[in-house]
Amino acid sequence: MFNTGFLYIIEILGTFSFAVSGAFFAMEKKLDPFGVIILAFVTAIGGGTLRDLMIGNLPVGWLQNETASITISIAAIGSMFFEARLRQFTTTLFLFDALGLGLFTIVGIEMAIKLQFSTGVCIAIGTITASFGGVIRDVLLNNVPLVFRKEIYAMASIIGGLVYFLFRKIQLDEDVAKVVCILLIFAIRLIAVKYRLGLPAFYEKK
Amino acid sequence: MFNTGFLYIIEILGTFSFAVSGAFFAMEKKLDPFGVIILAFVTAIGGGTLRDLMIGNLPVGWLQNETASITISIAAIGSMFFEARLRQFTTTLFLFDALGLGLFTIVGIEMAIKLQFSTGVCIAIGTITASFGGVIRDVLLNNVPLVFRKEIYAMASIIGGLVYFLFRKIQLDEDVAKVVCILLIFAIRLIAVKYRLGLPAFYEKK
Amino acid sequence: MFNTGFLYIIEILGTFSFAVSGAFFAMEKKLDPFGVIILAFVTAIGGGTLRDLMIGNLPVGWLQNETASITISIAAIGSMFFEARLRQFTTTLFLFDALGLGLFTIVGIEMAIKLQFSTGVCIAIGTITASFGGVIRDVLLNNVPLVFRKEIYAMASIIGGLVYFLFRKIQLDEDVAKVVCILLIFAIRLIAVKYRLGLPAFYEKK
Repeated sequence: MFNTGFLYIIEILGTFSFAVSGAFFAMEKKLDPFGVIILAFVTAIGGGTLRDLMIGNLPVGWLQNETASITISIAAIGSMFFEARLRQFTTTLFLFDALGLGLFTIVGIEMAIKLQFSTGVCIAIGTITASFGGVIRDVLLNNVPLVFRKEIYAMASIIGGLVYFLFRKIQLDEDVAKVVCILLIFAIRLIAVKYRLGLPAFYEKK
Repeated sequence: MFNTGFLYIIEILGTFSFAVSGAFFAMEKKLDPFGVIILAFVTAIGGGTLRDLMIGNLPVGWLQNETASITISIAAIGSMFFEARLRQFTTTLFLFDALGLGLFTIVGIEMAIKLQFSTGVCIAIGTITASFGGVIRDVLLNNVPLVFRKEIYAMASIIGGLVYFLFRKIQLDEDVAKVVCILLIFAIRLIAVKYRLGLPAFYEKK
Repeated sequence: MFNTGFLYIIEILGTFSFAVSGAFFAMEKKLDPFGVIILAFVTAIGGGTLRDLMIGNLPVGWLQNETASITISIAAIGSMFFEARLRQFTTTLFLFDALGLGLFTIVGIEMAIKLQFSTGVCIAIGTITASFGGVIRDVLLNNVPLVFRKEIYAMASIIGGLVYFLFRKIQLDEDVAKVVCILLIFAIRLIAVKYRLGLPAFYEKK
């Protein structure tokens, strides 16, 4: 259990970054403060909510988790008050976001494993947990979801998920497996952004 | 129980107004009659459906409530046949809509209280119940949701919800508390529209 | 049970066609391969997922159905690799899609009947099962849903559903009723497309 505190801190930082990203997108579209707060929530808890709905984990998690709500509220209100200052920390926020991507993927996969879904479904659920908050954010803001168009994002989740199952197969210590996979997803995301990698298109984009 | 009949009438009028609003938005986008009917349904039952999904109240309410379905169908078909005439009653419809906003907020809060959620979550659920039908309507019609951009709407729900918890704390009679809070939300909404009040933006809208 | 194999084949062909339609729409918007796969999934399983969420059939069906996931994955990847070739089979795909529309309507209605919903609700659930994958596809791609604007599509579901209940009333053999209604929906859809039929607008489309 050496990593419980570590995972908990990542969860808060990840939630915070997801919420800030939602708030910033909302401010760019000039939403009013209520809209900014909703977008922060949707981005941070949308993926987990969709997962909970689909697997029947009801009431959905965030309704029972004060920490998430408080973190998101602070992130949203802070984003409005300190927009300019936060913009100086985009790199930091990006790093938290990438850590959150890794963590939420593994959290989703773990929940799916407990329900004994097949490997493919578990990885799908992990990816949904980590990516679909951003999808709902984009839908609400009337954009085609970024994750369907941009550099490797969901793909980092999928690769990390596959490696996690590999580690389980070779019976690596669970805590080690988790931390390594989170860091792997984090690293893939960093490299993808640094080198502007996208998925190769198998079809002709006319 | 002096107010059961009163609340029932508000529910039908509120559902009717929400449905008419959905139908009118759909007609403006020139949807075909099937689309108009769906938009009327989504607007009227979307918020309650999202609430039911998230708290695990399944099957969701409208599947078991003939009155809502019939009211919405009449509103949708009536909107198509008597569009011009209904437009003369926009003020009346607005008043029903504002009453519905109040009622659905309190209905949602009551359901959340029974499930023993925290105060913040209860108010969030009340607000979702009252406002998110309109959000789904706007998403389906490819608009950025009005409620994120316009005069105080969801904020009226939130204030009404806060006052409702205050009344519970001082142990005001439950029926009185309900009616007062519905009328409070109604009044806030009226004042907001009359004076074109919006939320103050804490951030710079460039 | 003479038709079990027949229904099973239709289900696979229908799922395949729905997935190809999702993939093609995604490729037209130049999504990356991950986006194309997600759109294929959403189009093929979106309607059934929404139905399962609303009636409380959790975890939702596709999480427990490998056949659907595999069919959709093949359809999505095939669409990207063999786009040009598949385009020569649009008529074939359209026929599968129309068969799928019929089948998924009846599947949805059957599930609703088992839960003893009213006739109107059963038909609504059948229509949602068959049509709302396309609605979610369109929302994700930032389009106003086609089904709200185009030739008779959902209306074919509704008519087929009404006839199905008529057949139940006169106690027609259940298998016969199913097959006839699937073919009826199929036929309505074909005729609607061939003669470019739309619903008559009851209101003035200015």
